[in-house]
Amino acid sequence: MNFRIVIYQLGLVLLVLSLCMLLIVGCSAVAWFSAAGPAETIAIESMLISAVLGTVVGLALWLIGRRSESDSFGPREALLLVGVSWLIGAAFAGVPYYLWAILHPDHGDGGVEFASLISCYFEAMSGLTTTGATVLSDIESIPNSLLLWRATTQWLGGLGIIVLFVAVLPTLGVGGKKLFQTEVAGPTQKSVRPRIRDTARMLWFIYILFTIVLILLLALFGMDWFDAVCHSFTTVATGGFSTHNASIGHYQVENVGVTNFWGIHLVILVGIVLGGVNFGLYYQLARRRFNLVWTDPELRLYLCILLVASLLVALNIYATPIVTTGGEKIEAGLDKSLLYGAFHVASIGTSAGFCTADSDLWPFTSQAVLVILMFVGASAGSTGGGIKVVRVLIAFKVILAEVNRVFRPRVVRTIRVGRAVVDSDQRQSVLVYLLGIVALFAVGTVLLMLLEPRGSLDITTAATASAATLNNIGPGLGRVGAIENYGFFTPASKLVMCILMALGRLEVFAIFVLFVPSFWRQG
Amino acid sequence: MNFRIVIYQLGLVLLVLSLCMLLIVGCSAVAWFSAAGPAETIAIESMLISAVLGTVVGLALWLIGRRSESDSFGPREALLLVGVSWLIGAAFAGVPYYLWAILHPDHGDGGVEFASLISCYFEAMSGLTTTGATVLSDIESIPNSLLLWRATTQWLGGLGIIVLFVAVLPTLGVGGKKLFQTEVAGPTQKSVRPRIRDTARMLWFIYILFTIVLILLLALFGMDWFDAVCHSFTTVATGGFSTHNASIGHYQVENVGVTNFWGIHLVILVGIVLGGVNFGLYYQLARRRFNLVWTDPELRLYLCILLVASLLVALNIYATPIVTTGGEKIEAGLDKSLLYGAFHVASIGTSAGFCTADSDLWPFTSQAVLVILMFVGASAGSTGGGIKVVRVLIAFKVILAEVNRVFRPRVVRTIRVGRAVVDSDQRQSVLVYLLGIVALFAVGTVLLMLLEPRGSLDITTAATASAATLNNIGPGLGRVGAIENYGFFTPASKLVMCILMALGRLEVFAIFVLFVPSFWRQG
Repeated sequence: MNFRIVIYQLGLVLLVLSLCMLLIVGCSAVAWFSAAGPAETIAIESMLISAVLGTVVGLALWLIGRRSESDSFGPREALLLVGVSWLIGAAFAGVPYYLWAILHPDHGDGGVEFASLISCYFEAMSGLTTTGATVLSDIESIPNSLLLWRATTQWLGGLGIIVLFVAVLPTLGVGGKKLFQTEVAGPTQKSVRPRIRDTARMLWFIYILFTIVLILLLALFGMDWFDAVCHSFTTVATGGFSTHNASIGHYQVENVGVTNFWGIHLVILVGIVLGGVNFGLYYQLARRRFNLVWTDPELRLYLCILLVASLLVALNIYATPIVTTGGEKIEAGLDKSLLYGAFHVASIGTSAGFCTADSDLWPFTSQAVLVILMFVGASAGSTGGGIKVVRVLIAFKVILAEVNRVFRPRVVRTIRVGRAVVDSDQRQSVLVYLLGIVALFAVGTVLLMLLEPRGSLDITTAATASAATLNNIGPGLGRVGAIENYGFFTPASKLVMCILMALGRLEVFAIFVLFVPSFWRQG
Repeated sequence: MNFRIVIYQLGLVLLVLSLCMLLIVGCSAVAWFSAAGPAETIAIESMLISAVLGTVVGLALWLIGRRSESDSFGPREALLLVGVSWLIGAAFAGVPYYLWAILHPDHGDGGVEFASLISCYFEAMSGLTTTGATVLSDIESIPNSLLLWRATTQWLGGLGIIVLFVAVLPTLGVGGKKLFQTEVAGPTQKSVRPRIRDTARMLWFIYILFTIVLILLLALFGMDWFDAVCHSFTTVATGGFSTHNASIGHYQVENVGVTNFWGIHLVILVGIVLGGVNFGLYYQLARRRFNLVWTDPELRLYLCILLVASLLVALNIYATPIVTTGGEKIEAGLDKSLLYGAFHVASIGTSAGFCTADSDLWPFTSQAVLVILMFVGASAGSTGGGIKVVRVLIAFKVILAEVNRVFRPRVVRTIRVGRAVVDSDQRQSVLVYLLGIVALFAVGTVLLMLLEPRGSLDITTAATASAATLNNIGPGLGRVGAIENYGFFTPASKLVMCILMALGRLEVFAIFVLFVPSFWRQG
């Protein structure tokens, strides 16, 4: 193991995070919130201190690791870097929250949850992994500069994961292998580096373009610029952090005078659905390979699932009034049922986790659909979480082939996704991944039940909290439902969920290998 | 598909069941219960009518199918036969219950649950699949002859599964293969027949020997002969039907004067553990291949799991008093905690489902251990249910290999169980099987929630009812806990659970293929 190069790169990660913090400090100080009162001022100071701290540590790591040979950056180094980046990056990203809470003289106006280190780590991990679960009970009491940083962590996390899965990991032959490639690159070991850079730049470009378009559209429909920026950041990343306690439900029907209810809801709905698409396909789109995009089996199935689930939920909630996250009670017509149903289906299905209605009050069928969607997740190579549609598709095909084999043992079957043949190694990977997720979900549920005071946690809350963090969704059911938060958990439970979030985001292996002894052996 | 031969064999199945009924009628009429009152008399009459009915139908089917050519008995016919035998066999086995309930003049003394056709089907399916879930709220009010028939269905189911595995399902995955992995390497359709029959006879012999030894031991420790017979039948089959409302908890500490508390508990404990061992190992034992038995990896892991789980549960319940299924409250010392803990662990782990304590009152840790054991199950080729220890073992090894492959992609790994190499087809089968069980469990849970009146079923009851029927355990938690029963479910839910029991017992495929269109195509 070449630790030097990992340290070097980790230093770069910290420098990038620090730079982002400095940018926010700059914006905050100059333009927006300068006259916003002591809490805001302390928040900006906290960000500044964190940024300086990060720069110093980042530079130190960079200097220590600088003289490494880049040849020796193999799969093991890449895995270690990815795992450590997320685990340590989240710790660093949580520093401003904590500093603000302890420097802040009076918690009367909210944010008391940030006075705990593990809560800050949870919030930062939830951000970087684009989960969207929060410990905050009163988001609106948090200074704007911290809210912007919170949204930025999701934006960075979403971008990081796309570059990782679409451009970096496949070329190393790690994790999903071909799973994430839609012919992005077919590199040989040597020519890889320049190609990765090209692909990564292209993805950067697409991601930023999406963000800008979203900001403009949301502003057009009446969001103020601050909210538009924050929500765009967390929409394109399918993250789910909002600047309002009621999430997107803040933009209620009654506020139509100020903001365009349908406009905002539909822009975010479309935004998260697009965020859940394999970004490799946008790359193909930019290269005018329309046919490749149109015939992509994962894209088709992904849209199909969202459509069918939306109709199911809409029908199921049609009969009863909808209670929004803002507390408004709506006598739902067909249009509203469809909107609220489709919004929550897309929000859970893409792993964004925005809420408009209190889905905890919905009938069992809708809740079951939403929980299933948590596990299915979005597309491979997207910013979304979950198992990923293509894996579910492959698993279904393997199961069908297996059933057929029972009564026709001698017929050999090849399994295809589109035109690509799924070989036996890939089949095994997919099956193991699904089993792994199920096992982690069960372990997470049991741990949460054990770590909370006896009898205080119901099994629905424990199970959906485990599922919602592991699959990077955000809200669950019961005490972690649409209008609730994760603040009440014990520190031990929060730590468990931090690990679940990291495991889910990095497709299990990048974190899991860190605990495997043989990973560390042999030079 | 050669339907004729399937009809022919199905006729034989019905004739065997009828013969068993007639034997019970004979015993009941002559020796035991002749002067036991009108309910008993009607029960014997019901059995007689059922037996005659079964004989007529069985003979008719036998005559219709008689002229089939036995050459054409391929894998598809075998699967169809097995599936249909269980589905129709259970229907026939439930007839005496129903006849008794409708001929019986007064339900004041219990058994009113049998007045529903689906409840009788449920009870019969629970018997034949050796699940042990009952619809009865007052078992002791049921006539002895019906109780004996109830125990006999489990005894037949326990043996039948093995014989069927051996005789017709050698190609169906781990269960059948495991039995013969040393003796019959790659069985071809023709040359194997005599050997399979020999082995099947040997297994019959071992099974009957076990049963007789158990009867004698239980009688020795103070059970009356009727109870001894019934409990032996359901112990060796790891079935779990008892003749008492309090199950084995009926033999309480206070009754030590009449019966030997420790004797009865330990005999049944050892009995179910032995019933959960691969019967192929007994065959090896009879042939004095001790080393083969001793080094069997599944046996070792199976015993290990039971031991560790017993200690865990015993420690966990040590602090609090134990409430027996008979309602007695015991201040548990170390000995009692160990006994009650080990008994429930073995009972759930081997899928027997006998109860001595109200495990619904136990702390979460113990309940979590028991639920995990439900899924792990007993050994392949045993009378026990669940996923089977060897499959869990293989899955673990595959997952570990997969994790290793992430950072050492070029190293090829062979996976072994003992000395046998698990090839990639077998690995895939095991992974698909595990995923299939998880999926069926989830589908079962959701269906039960949907089919019960809205809000009446809690998720714990639904989930454990689904797990307990799918894995052929018997009791679950909540409203299907140790001192509860399955009588309250709606008919639709009962049907779902009947299908789950059949799916679990026949290792999914034999039932599942019946719903696959391509199974029915081509001749």
